[in-house]
Amino acid sequence: MSQEPVGDFGLIGLAVMGQNLILNAADHGFTVVAFNRTVAKVDAFLENEAKGKSVVGAKSIEDFVSKLKKPRRMMLLVMAGKPVDDFIETLLGAGVEKDDIIIDGGNSHFPDTNRRCKYLESKGIRFVGSGVSGGEEGARHGPSIMPGGNEAAWPFIKDVLQSISAKSDGEACCQWVGDEGAGHYVKMVHNGIEYGDMQLICEAYDILKRGLKIPDKEIADVFAKWNKGVLDSFLIEITRDILYFNDDDGTPLVEKILDSAGQKGTGKWTAINALDLGQPVTLIGEAVFARCLSSLKDERVRASEKLSGPDPKFEGDKQEFVDNLEQALYASKIISYTQGFILMQNAAATYKWKLQKPEIALMWRGGCIIRSVFLKDITSAYRKQPELENLLFDDFFNKAIHKAQPGWRDVVAKGAMWGIPTPAFSTALSFYDGLRTKNLPANLLQAQRDYFGAHTFLIKPEYANEKYPVGKNHHVNWTGGGGNVSASTYTA
Amino acid sequence: MSQEPVGDFGLIGLAVMGQNLILNAADHGFTVVAFNRTVAKVDAFLENEAKGKSVVGAKSIEDFVSKLKKPRRMMLLVMAGKPVDDFIETLLGAGVEKDDIIIDGGNSHFPDTNRRCKYLESKGIRFVGSGVSGGEEGARHGPSIMPGGNEAAWPFIKDVLQSISAKSDGEACCQWVGDEGAGHYVKMVHNGIEYGDMQLICEAYDILKRGLKIPDKEIADVFAKWNKGVLDSFLIEITRDILYFNDDDGTPLVEKILDSAGQKGTGKWTAINALDLGQPVTLIGEAVFARCLSSLKDERVRASEKLSGPDPKFEGDKQEFVDNLEQALYASKIISYTQGFILMQNAAATYKWKLQKPEIALMWRGGCIIRSVFLKDITSAYRKQPELENLLFDDFFNKAIHKAQPGWRDVVAKGAMWGIPTPAFSTALSFYDGLRTKNLPANLLQAQRDYFGAHTFLIKPEYANEKYPVGKNHHVNWTGGGGNVSASTYTA
Repeated sequence: MSQEPVGDFGLIGLAVMGQNLILNAADHGFTVVAFNRTVAKVDAFLENEAKGKSVVGAKSIEDFVSKLKKPRRMMLLVMAGKPVDDFIETLLGAGVEKDDIIIDGGNSHFPDTNRRCKYLESKGIRFVGSGVSGGEEGARHGPSIMPGGNEAAWPFIKDVLQSISAKSDGEACCQWVGDEGAGHYVKMVHNGIEYGDMQLICEAYDILKRGLKIPDKEIADVFAKWNKGVLDSFLIEITRDILYFNDDDGTPLVEKILDSAGQKGTGKWTAINALDLGQPVTLIGEAVFARCLSSLKDERVRASEKLSGPDPKFEGDKQEFVDNLEQALYASKIISYTQGFILMQNAAATYKWKLQKPEIALMWRGGCIIRSVFLKDITSAYRKQPELENLLFDDFFNKAIHKAQPGWRDVVAKGAMWGIPTPAFSTALSFYDGLRTKNLPANLLQAQRDYFGAHTFLIKPEYANEKYPVGKNHHVNWTGGGGNVSASTYTA
Repeated sequence: MSQEPVGDFGLIGLAVMGQNLILNAADHGFTVVAFNRTVAKVDAFLENEAKGKSVVGAKSIEDFVSKLKKPRRMMLLVMAGKPVDDFIETLLGAGVEKDDIIIDGGNSHFPDTNRRCKYLESKGIRFVGSGVSGGEEGARHGPSIMPGGNEAAWPFIKDVLQSISAKSDGEACCQWVGDEGAGHYVKMVHNGIEYGDMQLICEAYDILKRGLKIPDKEIADVFAKWNKGVLDSFLIEITRDILYFNDDDGTPLVEKILDSAGQKGTGKWTAINALDLGQPVTLIGEAVFARCLSSLKDERVRASEKLSGPDPKFEGDKQEFVDNLEQALYASKIISYTQGFILMQNAAATYKWKLQKPEIALMWRGGCIIRSVFLKDITSAYRKQPELENLLFDDFFNKAIHKAQPGWRDVVAKGAMWGIPTPAFSTALSFYDGLRTKNLPANLLQAQRDYFGAHTFLIKPEYANEKYPVGKNHHVNWTGGGGNVSASTYTA
């Protein structure tokens, strides 16, 4: 005797993130069907965390499918990679029908999501790849959710996802991102930006500690103050908390933590994608490389004995310099987001996705790790001009970066003189100065390539003439020694 | 009636590089069989460039194979990618036999070479992937040749390749590199370093031009002088020539060349490989990104009207600053090669290749685009200590970088204050300062990751105790608000 299906929403994968999303959805009035490969975990969850909530357990994948109302709305929260493909196949064999919706809520790489979208579309199943950010707390009380894929699914999943997502000024931090793997792509860039934000905070902390020689408690005071200004954000807030946090012996615990950071995931993907698309996303690149260098701890310990540098000596007004540092962090952050949006608009053009820039900024505004007041200003900028070419061309950010410049330059210059590494601050400044330079020295580079490889060059329009028409490839015999050579197969 | 084979060496692909390698080999006493897909090109070559030389034309691929002595030594100089696979298949069907040797002399990506090596080994054919650098001039009179792959081939091809290669102090700039795609890998890193060297020269030129406001002819004088010191190298030499080179109107031609540089090849591959291996090869990364930014010419022109910066004003002793700039360029170059060798030794460990570091430096010493006096010092360093962990630990380079430091820091600081982008100088300095830092701020980063994602942290050995044993993953409840949470599936 078949049962009437009761479930509004199904979720597979009962790790902490999955459990918290289920509880979150139940709190919003949805009846959620829960399943896990190890079924004992389902029972334990029902008897404990989910007790008394509108959560129904499934004993098998067939049971899971049969308990959901049609079109079924099913979310996977399992490890990225093969487990996602495996569960998709299992679902296909367990009664999933045309027009049902499968949502992958894990950190899948966007090319995998592209592939799965096409595959499931061929079977009439609607697939959605959705970034979910906010950690466990976010999952429980409102994460940032970035869904993309088969847009026909959106009207059916909008109510659940927007109910459980974070809200910013009453708006859901969950909007439709775009086609295919666009949701996971945007989540990837989010994580890359998160790498950048964290690296910038680390550089500021290092300068305060080793440059100004301020104790951690006072550094915490600085972050507490910054958290009330333009830098107001989740990451500045937790930095404050961390620096105030003492171990049992009354000294800051953070100083005892090994300074070796891993990197293997989405930050690296973002940097590689930027290289593939030929977009100068330098800040995320440096942030990833900074983690790589940090992880060479043993080599650094040996190097610290063989390589010396200056001893930082600060002279002048400390508060003024701390204010400069705030501006350096703010300006570098503006650059990082500028680069991130350049990357996303380039990806949209390359992959033929419609990406809504104001919606992306709104989704990052709340619930996720990079949530900040700053993202409200970005949302406003793109709402005013959805086709804004460059964030730095928006009035608000244009003024902000000009105001921040003197302090930012001072910090980068002092870092260099003091021997304190500032890879992210510095690359942000070089990007700003490069972007605003009409004539970069790449003219010399093109001359070099023509000299040694006959790679040819183009002429600047203002110098075009009969000998050097615009848009044509030119080659000259730089040495005067031989004849004209044609382009070689050598590729630099 | 079958002919007696006459050919010592066969070459397929008669673009300029191929033609020049054939003439080079013929000059060294080898009888070379030449073939090209368009056979008319073979005839034209024999009637013109190759007239009177020991070069024999082939009318078909079967003819090409039959004219070569066994074991046949055949080099492909065709476009990387599908053409290489196609010619391999064609050769297999045209009489190539067990123990014959196929050398791919193009710019193939090393994973393709890995694959081809295995595939041909399964058929008893010895495959070699060889980087060839030096442009057309090098190909004709002595290129740098970097062969790797099936080592059983080496005794049979050593005489030809070393004869035609460049020589440095009597030693051939062609040595066996290592297994599988190791030859193409080393060529890839060579090209990445070439990107870096060119970017550094561009930054120096930009600072001389816009910072010191020196005319090109005087900048050429500076490069001419530098070419007699520690920077003595092919790229500095051609920069000098380029800056002296005037257009018909008596002004420097280089200033009329469009400042938009392409990047799609080996530099990008190097940066991506560095990210994949988790190695901080920051200078090549910035050099690739600098080309990306240069190519956004239209956007930069618009940005130059909206984004302002300081006007560089130089005060002080110009010659002293020019000397500082020489040291900045030298020090940054030392860092770039240090990073390149770190990458190669890591690749060797990861891919299980035996790479000979002294031989690599020797191969780059002559014939190729990055040839320099500097590489003689690197060769010496690795000959003294083949297992040298880090180039900066070698006495010579250790002294050099310490001597260069004050000038280097001055240049980076001035670039920041002047608004002239120095992405490569700056990232090199940040790497140096990061490498020599025992305690980087990544401790804070790990605390942040534990705070928002329960990612756990390790303790510094000097702070280990019963509560925090060394080598164990620790998690604390930073907010004091809740219980201990277990690691989430969130991956930052």
